[in-house]
Amino acid sequence: MKIAVLGGDGFVGWPTALHLSARDHEIHIVDNLSRRWIDTELGVQSLTPMDSIQERTRIWHAETGRRIHFHLIDLAKDYDVLKNWLAEERPDAVVHFAEQRAAPYSMKTDRHKNYTVNNNVNATHNLLNAMVEIGLDAHLVHLGTMGVYGYSSVGAAIPEGYLPVGVETLSGETASQEILYPANPGSIYHMTKCLDQLVFQFYARNDGVRITDLHQGIVWGTHTDETRRHEQLVNRFDYDGDYGTVLNRFLIQAAIGHPLTVHGTGGQTRAFIHIQDSVRCVELALANPPEAGDRVKIFNQMTETHRVRDLAEMIAEMTGTKIAYLPNPRKEAAENDLVVRNEQFRALGLDPITLEQGLMSEVVDVARKYAYRIDRSRVPAVSAWTKEIAKTVERDPEGKRLKSVG
Amino acid sequence: MKIAVLGGDGFVGWPTALHLSARDHEIHIVDNLSRRWIDTELGVQSLTPMDSIQERTRIWHAETGRRIHFHLIDLAKDYDVLKNWLAEERPDAVVHFAEQRAAPYSMKTDRHKNYTVNNNVNATHNLLNAMVEIGLDAHLVHLGTMGVYGYSSVGAAIPEGYLPVGVETLSGETASQEILYPANPGSIYHMTKCLDQLVFQFYARNDGVRITDLHQGIVWGTHTDETRRHEQLVNRFDYDGDYGTVLNRFLIQAAIGHPLTVHGTGGQTRAFIHIQDSVRCVELALANPPEAGDRVKIFNQMTETHRVRDLAEMIAEMTGTKIAYLPNPRKEAAENDLVVRNEQFRALGLDPITLEQGLMSEVVDVARKYAYRIDRSRVPAVSAWTKEIAKTVERDPEGKRLKSVG
Ligand SMILES: NC(=O)c1ccc[n+]([C@@H]2O[C@H](COP(=O)([O-])OP(=O)(O)OC[C@H]3O[C@@H](n4cnc5c(N)ncnc54)[C@H](O)[C@@H]3O)[C@@H](O)[C@H]2O)c1
Ligand SMILES: NC(=O)c1ccc[n+]([C@@H]2O[C@H](COP(=O)([O-])OP(=O)(O)OC[C@H]3O[C@@H](n4cnc5c(N)ncnc54)[C@H](O)[C@@H]3O)[C@@H](O)[C@H]2O)c1
Repeated sequence: MKIAVLGGDGFVGWPTALHLSARDHEIHIVDNLSRRWIDTELGVQSLTPMDSIQERTRIWHAETGRRIHFHLIDLAKDYDVLKNWLAEERPDAVVHFAEQRAAPYSMKTDRHKNYTVNNNVNATHNLLNAMVEIGLDAHLVHLGTMGVYGYSSVGAAIPEGYLPVGVETLSGETASQEILYPANPGSIYHMTKCLDQLVFQFYARNDGVRITDLHQGIVWGTHTDETRRHEQLVNRFDYDGDYGTVLNRFLIQAAIGHPLTVHGTGGQTRAFIHIQDSVRCVELALANPPEAGDRVKIFNQMTETHRVRDLAEMIAEMTGTKIAYLPNPRKEAAENDLVVRNEQFRALGLDPITLEQGLMSEVVDVARKYAYRIDRSRVPAVSAWTKEIAKTVERDPEGKRLKSVG
Repeated sequence: MKIAVLGGDGFVGWPTALHLSARDHEIHIVDNLSRRWIDTELGVQSLTPMDSIQERTRIWHAETGRRIHFHLIDLAKDYDVLKNWLAEERPDAVVHFAEQRAAPYSMKTDRHKNYTVNNNVNATHNLLNAMVEIGLDAHLVHLGTMGVYGYSSVGAAIPEGYLPVGVETLSGETASQEILYPANPGSIYHMTKCLDQLVFQFYARNDGVRITDLHQGIVWGTHTDETRRHEQLVNRFDYDGDYGTVLNRFLIQAAIGHPLTVHGTGGQTRAFIHIQDSVRCVELALANPPEAGDRVKIFNQMTETHRVRDLAEMIAEMTGTKIAYLPNPRKEAAENDLVVRNEQFRALGLDPITLEQGLMSEVVDVARKYAYRIDRSRVPAVSAWTKEIAKTVERDPEGKRLKSVG
């Protein structure tokens, strides 16, 4: 297949591009390199030294003889360029990773809120609009998030996208139907993924676009079989307060002997998946497209759930680090349960890597190996979710840890 | 109260501004006048001669001694200007009409799809973002549409925004809860109103913004008590294929002796409200704001429902015009029932004007009076919903009527 990987310079996009290239697909990465600009804006960098996309694709070619093509296009701003490019290349499938994906970044300031809404809604809408305009019948696989469900459970297991409900009809009977799970986003970033869902629903119904939406958990781990093939094919590893997800941040804190910073009670339960499983899931989704006219096919792309404080304890035990409980900068429930259905990928053969198995190698192969590159000032979380929360949570002048004031 | 009327140069915004000004509120219209530009783009004009906003507010002042202030701001593009303006004026309430509101226009071309998504999502999001940023605790009243519900009913009455459903819990019991009614938009325009809903939900939950969303039916009628006060205060009246709603288009067809063009079987049932009731509803909504921390308050702003072919028959009978059944350019159910709850406005004292009572005066006072201004070539509908439909529905060279080809 000819596959366009939009956002293929990113953390999940890059190993996906390699994984699919290794399996004989013709890969075209489309990216505006905005994440590299955001690294510059924030003054942060990947823990792992990350080469330019041009250099990485050159090395992949030298190693494997396979070409990955790179195209610099901004999906959100360059509608006409995108449309013309799609019309020329006519890929069989499009994998869409190209969005601003950090919740804390999306909550930083009003400018970041606007940027996230603009970038993500326009990237997704431009893509669909262009596909319909040029009559491109490609399978669109989008990376969504478990966060669209929200985490304040109704005491029911989270289904794969669609919730069966009973509704009272005019005649007083109860009719059953399946509805898109009611959206409950916890940040502007998560909100944009909920907006995406409605855009997908519309284009699937009105124009018969074949769409798969992957509601992904938090991705952990660094290496896949392909990124391991050469030092310079290594994946990015974010640990800063904006882009570093909870597990990465614990790993780094452990590596430098900083206490593991748990927000609030650490009672938040989240869903996780290893990067190797994530790329495998995208491959499985590509191999199992919906039919034209079908509703959007939704998978929960996650393999296990954990409470944040249990994760902290797991890592504390492995590494002998302490845990520090700090005020929560986010507006969210202190404690939540999370039961998630993920039968579809299991049925397609996914055999997941567990945190239990894989975590120690992350500590040794990644966090300790690159510990010399860690910038300690980048470890604390810095975005408060509301003006009220901002007043009670504040960074100290050295930026080393959060503290509670007043 | 000091009230900002965003989109106050438009069809519903203008009489709302007058109605509220007449009731001693301090009114500030904010508008980018984009609708006047769209008139120019399409080469259409209001049936009623419409003066500039500056002239209209001057006449209002001459007639009543009251000032309506006008500010030229693009909500979608001028975030900083909007924010600074709000910070300076600090209105007590904001009524938000400022969106691209025609479904056919939103489906015209890929450019119009992008414009509608960009304009509407950014207008709404910029507004909320700015309010939170400057800590403005104003009541936001937004004009939404009945179209967010979709018209393929589940056999249940359409509630006011929130649907009670039963969900099976982990323990096998059924838990009841109220959810935002599952969105089912029928066009890009309607989709943007569904996106708006999620943005409102987020800002109400995260930041405690007080928001009322009015799910309005199709507005008919031209005059309110205030627009009648002077010839040059007259409201706009759209009858073209993009902005003219079904009833206006029938009135014009009747006035020029053109057959009433019904799409498909005319079995589509829609909700209606008179312009005088619409402005009254906005006043009632302003007087009954939600509390900070409340969920978004949703009213169904409509007073009666009719099948399109019944409307055509009603007008055909009044005026002796024929009816012509033409292929439907929209992708929608041929026939639908519609039962809508609207108890909230009735409980607040709304006593509606019915089509039965008011329609004849529209025929005489408006359609016939201004019939000399009608541009016959603007009467047919021109946007097809999909590429497939476009192939079977096509305008004839003179643009006089739709015909079926192939
Ligand atoms: N990393 C996770 O834990 C995780 C979890 C759930 C969902 N996801 C989703 O998976 C996708 C990829 O995540 P990631 O961690 O690889 O993010 P990332 O930031 O590393 O990669 C995103 C890539 O998209 C590009 N991009 C952004 N906007 C663009 C635009 N307008 N035009 C062109 N390119 C653009 C960026 O330059 C970047 O290379 C995202 O959509 C994200 O929401 C990620
Ligand atoms: N007319 C109806 O039958 C009807 C029915 C249901 C809902 N509504 C809703 O009511 C609202 C008003 O409808 P209307 O019929 O008065 O429409 P309209 O087009 O006559 O008025 C909209 C006004 O908003 C302005 N505007 C648009 N985008 C703007 C922006 N970015 N910045 C500043 N101003 C902007 C336009 O210039 C125009 O004056 C709309 O939101 C519409 O969706 C209308």
